[in-house]
Amino acid sequence: MRAVDILRKKRDGAELAREEIEFLIRGATDNSVPDYQLAAFLMAVLWRGMTSAELAALTEAMLHSGEVLDFSALRGAKVDKHSTGGVGDKTSLVIAPVVAAAGINVPLGQKPIYVPMISGRGLGHTGGTLDKLESIPGFNVNLPLAEFRGVLEKCHCALIGQTPEIAPADKKLYALRDVTATVESPYLICASIMSKKMAEGIDALVLDVKTGNGAFMKQQSDAEYLAQLMVDTGTRMGKKVVALITDMDQPLGRKIGNALEVDECLDILHGAGPPDLRELCDELSAWMFVLAGRVPHLADGRALAFEMIASGRARDTFREIIRAQGGNPGVVDDPSLLPRAKSVAKVKAQRGGFVSAIRSEQVGVASMVLGGGREKKEDSIEPAVGLVLEKKVGEPVEAGGTLCTIHYNSDSHLPKAVDLLSASFEIADAPPPAVPLVRKVIGAQ
Amino acid sequence: MRAVDILRKKRDGAELAREEIEFLIRGATDNSVPDYQLAAFLMAVLWRGMTSAELAALTEAMLHSGEVLDFSALRGAKVDKHSTGGVGDKTSLVIAPVVAAAGINVPLGQKPIYVPMISGRGLGHTGGTLDKLESIPGFNVNLPLAEFRGVLEKCHCALIGQTPEIAPADKKLYALRDVTATVESPYLICASIMSKKMAEGIDALVLDVKTGNGAFMKQQSDAEYLAQLMVDTGTRMGKKVVALITDMDQPLGRKIGNALEVDECLDILHGAGPPDLRELCDELSAWMFVLAGRVPHLADGRALAFEMIASGRARDTFREIIRAQGGNPGVVDDPSLLPRAKSVAKVKAQRGGFVSAIRSEQVGVASMVLGGGREKKEDSIEPAVGLVLEKKVGEPVEAGGTLCTIHYNSDSHLPKAVDLLSASFEIADAPPPAVPLVRKVIGAQ
Repeated sequence: MRAVDILRKKRDGAELAREEIEFLIRGATDNSVPDYQLAAFLMAVLWRGMTSAELAALTEAMLHSGEVLDFSALRGAKVDKHSTGGVGDKTSLVIAPVVAAAGINVPLGQKPIYVPMISGRGLGHTGGTLDKLESIPGFNVNLPLAEFRGVLEKCHCALIGQTPEIAPADKKLYALRDVTATVESPYLICASIMSKKMAEGIDALVLDVKTGNGAFMKQQSDAEYLAQLMVDTGTRMGKKVVALITDMDQPLGRKIGNALEVDECLDILHGAGPPDLRELCDELSAWMFVLAGRVPHLADGRALAFEMIASGRARDTFREIIRAQGGNPGVVDDPSLLPRAKSVAKVKAQRGGFVSAIRSEQVGVASMVLGGGREKKEDSIEPAVGLVLEKKVGEPVEAGGTLCTIHYNSDSHLPKAVDLLSASFEIADAPPPAVPLVRKVIGAQ
Repeated sequence: MRAVDILRKKRDGAELAREEIEFLIRGATDNSVPDYQLAAFLMAVLWRGMTSAELAALTEAMLHSGEVLDFSALRGAKVDKHSTGGVGDKTSLVIAPVVAAAGINVPLGQKPIYVPMISGRGLGHTGGTLDKLESIPGFNVNLPLAEFRGVLEKCHCALIGQTPEIAPADKKLYALRDVTATVESPYLICASIMSKKMAEGIDALVLDVKTGNGAFMKQQSDAEYLAQLMVDTGTRMGKKVVALITDMDQPLGRKIGNALEVDECLDILHGAGPPDLRELCDELSAWMFVLAGRVPHLADGRALAFEMIASGRARDTFREIIRAQGGNPGVVDDPSLLPRAKSVAKVKAQRGGFVSAIRSEQVGVASMVLGGGREKKEDSIEPAVGLVLEKKVGEPVEAGGTLCTIHYNSDSHLPKAVDLLSASFEIADAPPPAVPLVRKVIGAQ
């Protein structure tokens, strides 16, 4: 078999055989197929797309390029959530303890639930779960797989970053996609996400596919297309998968930036916090309960999520997870232990009216500019910086009223962030029509 | 400027700016743009094509990636011919001496002509001028550019191979195209050919674009498309360019293989040889005379080519070129000085009738299998082996009559060649309608 023949076939729009895809992915993993052939393959896939059979073969080949965790010894359902990323998207930090709390000491006849969560770092305008977790003093996201298993067993949830053992072919291809303008292919996105998630040894997966001006997919049709691909691919691999298409036309919640987002999640776990964030956490948790077989109906799942927060059990579980991963569990009850930025500044409204739109991607870039995110993978981040939206879409504001508070450390970054944020808010005479947060559910029976 | 942004633009079908193309080609030349980004670019070009402005920018950037020969000190027209390659396509060895002969000691008021010919080697089913020339004992195709210039000045023609100084970006891209299934893009073919030919410092170029079952372009429409691209690109660069679309539905002439093809060219220069080869050599030479301003009309050009052969002046010039490049000029009058294969075998007709088709690519592959060509660039070749078509399309054959004589050195290669050749001839009850050799001329005013 020769890579060039496989490239020619794909280039001409023919369907590749499973063995051909396996040959390329094996070559990507052991470097026997050079990067330039992989790059041409990626561009050909971006051009020609993939059939369901090709996509399943690609995802499985990438999955099996590395270690696949096996938690079959843990009695119960293993379930995870994955989001395609947005601005202020911090649900993992709520969902993980909520679902784990309901999975420990389950009532008789119920299955325990485990949440083995392997997350990524932020890049560009979007944040990453790992960076947020690391703003908790001492929290270690780099556990070896054996320790990951230990924490999972004990707390029913563990939160770590990608390890070299998981889907190494995805690491190679992801880096190549980034520099060859082939990031956007829904097939390549699907294979990348699903190969990594399936490597977690889970039975079920809830996908949060964002759409809107702060999301990767600006068009809802693109988000739905990707969601369907992921649901089909996961289902084909024998997993229960549901995808929620959710709104990212404005940031989720009010706080953006690593420590600030942890803070907002703690608000939620204490029963407070912004309603949109709470609603999405409840919905995603509820779907995880349904797929895990913990509750029969979505309404029951919502009730269970509510109970975990109201009873304080989710907070208890979060404390346990933080302690098990080396962090200071005191932050759960005293968010002032989180890092704080040196200074704050305010962005004021030029006119009065109602906030009619927030350019979310630009808001995310502002947070990145302050040091809260990365322009390049190698960049380091400042956990304390970020911003708080004092006004969200639909809310009234007076001329000169505060739209947004900036938390910053370096004076040199401030003007750029102010410029970006000032231009991010649109104000109109009337509030825009309200839009639902969950726009569609794909894959539910 | 970042390569990834240029890739994204091309991928999305937008027109690249000249500076963007120059950035990529400079990066290909000095290795500042990695191969994987170039590979993705090549696949994106294969997908999206190029506008005339993009193609001109690409060709010029590739041309200027290396040395551009300057023969302006030589008074007269500098003209060359390039063929896209076929089986038995050996016209360069006739045309070069014919045109040079008519360019030396020109009548008063006429401009001298120079033919600075930089050729390639054979690959796959097609032969290469350099390999053929090297079957002449002692002939050196690897002259340094200074010596090339010396021979050109003296003989009005010199024949060498690609040098590292000429279009190094093409060398890089050509190698990448070969392994990324992006060879077939007419835009990339055009830029590759034209950048190298324009580097010869010529004023005019006659293109022989082959079409048919032995050509790179099986469809005449593809050949015409490429021809038009090359004519437009050359014209845009201020050169006189004409393209002849010529038949490659059967091999040109009767002999295939390096020394055998030289032998057949010597037949032509002696006024004999197969009529199709003679006709094409006359046509191409005539066009070169027209573009060089040596004659006003094509008919005059044909007459001049005829005269060069009939008078023996083309043979004289060929002897001089061979001598100047270190070869034995005695071969011109004594072809037995060329290498000869150890053995011959015959391929017989299974039935009587008329040859109705010859699968030319397969015939070329048979010659390659015998050792006359290369499967990979690194392969060495055997100059003496090859084959002689005893019957061409339209000719009658009796059952058991010889279709083809195989000249071979190694018994182990013979069976495969016999199989290929036996399956290459189609025999029917009646001869097929005759087809013109020159199917179309593109670019003539």
